[in-house]
Amino acid sequence: MIIDGQKIAQEIKNELKLEIENLRAGSKRAPGLAVILVGDDPASQFYVAKKQSACAELGIESFKTVLGADCTKEQLISVINSYNSDNSVDGILLQLPLPTPLKPFTQEILDTISEHKDADGLTTLNLGKVLLDSPSAIFPCTPKGCMELLKRSGVALSGKRVLVIGRSLLVGKPVALMLSNANATVTLAHSQTQNLALEVAQADIVLAAIGKPEAILGKWIKPGAVVIDVGINPVLSSDGTKKIVGDVEFLEASQQASLITPVPGGVGPMTVAMLLKNTTELWKRA
Amino acid sequence: MIIDGQKIAQEIKNELKLEIENLRAGSKRAPGLAVILVGDDPASQFYVAKKQSACAELGIESFKTVLGADCTKEQLISVINSYNSDNSVDGILLQLPLPTPLKPFTQEILDTISEHKDADGLTTLNLGKVLLDSPSAIFPCTPKGCMELLKRSGVALSGKRVLVIGRSLLVGKPVALMLSNANATVTLAHSQTQNLALEVAQADIVLAAIGKPEAILGKWIKPGAVVIDVGINPVLSSDGTKKIVGDVEFLEASQQASLITPVPGGVGPMTVAMLLKNTTELWKRA
Repeated sequence: MIIDGQKIAQEIKNELKLEIENLRAGSKRAPGLAVILVGDDPASQFYVAKKQSACAELGIESFKTVLGADCTKEQLISVINSYNSDNSVDGILLQLPLPTPLKPFTQEILDTISEHKDADGLTTLNLGKVLLDSPSAIFPCTPKGCMELLKRSGVALSGKRVLVIGRSLLVGKPVALMLSNANATVTLAHSQTQNLALEVAQADIVLAAIGKPEAILGKWIKPGAVVIDVGINPVLSSDGTKKIVGDVEFLEASQQASLITPVPGGVGPMTVAMLLKNTTELWKRA
Repeated sequence: MIIDGQKIAQEIKNELKLEIENLRAGSKRAPGLAVILVGDDPASQFYVAKKQSACAELGIESFKTVLGADCTKEQLISVINSYNSDNSVDGILLQLPLPTPLKPFTQEILDTISEHKDADGLTTLNLGKVLLDSPSAIFPCTPKGCMELLKRSGVALSGKRVLVIGRSLLVGKPVALMLSNANATVTLAHSQTQNLALEVAQADIVLAAIGKPEAILGKWIKPGAVVIDVGINPVLSSDGTKKIVGDVEFLEASQQASLITPVPGGVGPMTVAMLLKNTTELWKRA
């Protein structure tokens, strides 16, 4: 009933660890992932630490550069370029979001990452490959994690009506394309959608990625539907403590759904696992 | 009731002609479009001739290279490269589909077109910009023509339920993204969709791009809906003559729809007009 993202992510990490060990037995150097963090946002620091410890677990060498929130575009690009030309680095990850002054230049900066080291799959060229469903595309980590969760939970997609809520570049748009390629009939809903409850009620699979705490009501979910909740929203509990909730009302939705991802412990761990998978893939190609 | 694509395309061509004349008064050279045709497919020859005569009408200089169906990938790429480095050429159009032996290399060949001359908007890099909705994106001609038809027919898109039928790279996928960016709630249907009649019945706007003659039945259309028919399907009439029909049963659908595009004379002329608009845009940027 509950899709255990932590467990599935661990399975994938175990597979990757084995694959890396086997390939390294042929005396290949270790895969390398460089993570670049700009500024001191605590959430970003937390995610970067998670990614680095996951690298250590798998035998992926990790590199890290931390720049001040006041660094210039040129300084950041120069760090990217040095990793581009470093042969021990297979993947480069620029932790997003960037601090406010750099934010408008995010895509321009991402596009300086070598197409051969684009572990997050967010360069313009790679996004074109995603649209083309090219064999050389690196699929962005969160959408790829959602697809993998569905696959490993045995959810058939062909002919299913899937509602993707949220049309972001990081999740909604690419996952809608990937689901369509997997033969689902995909509807992409968003803030301007007129009757979201009705859209949800008609969906065999609901994938929510809007970043609004429990905005998707559990009672809207069609009985037996599958729910993938991408949201990670910090909120205050009634007792004043902080907690993390998803975009879907979990308790109520889990009464309706046949399968549902929890938050935390659903899509989140998969995103990290897919980053490691992408890095391993780039290493194998290198 | 009927959206006159021929008339709207003519309006756009008149606007472009005026714009080109005005800019050329500043002694700027004429815009240039190079068309490359491989093989002797009659339909492709017809489309190329149409594009060239439209160029002449607007004061766009047109260049043409015809290669035999047996030409090699290298020969074709060498023609593209010579246009890439020709300063009088602003846009390069490779007429598709390529002959069978070259077909598997279509994207690889398209990707040799300079990003500054990609008049059809089909290079991988440009498709990434389409996914990003980047200001520098060149939107592929047929999807852009559909959007322009809707706009100039006064069809509001925000919050509307739009059904796109067909998930091709040339039409379905990019137009679904463009409609979503225009705040429509978009469903992308295709050959694996389970109950197409039901999907059609729920749509405020139906955009059909599957290339199957009159496969979308008129009675499925919701009363008052808008129908954009991208199909161009040659069929034999009952009297043995050839005619062209769309993907939608036109007569029956026009009883239901508030607005509908005819075939021919709907989306077709818009595709040519958008090619000229893209070429003019590239010329202005050059």
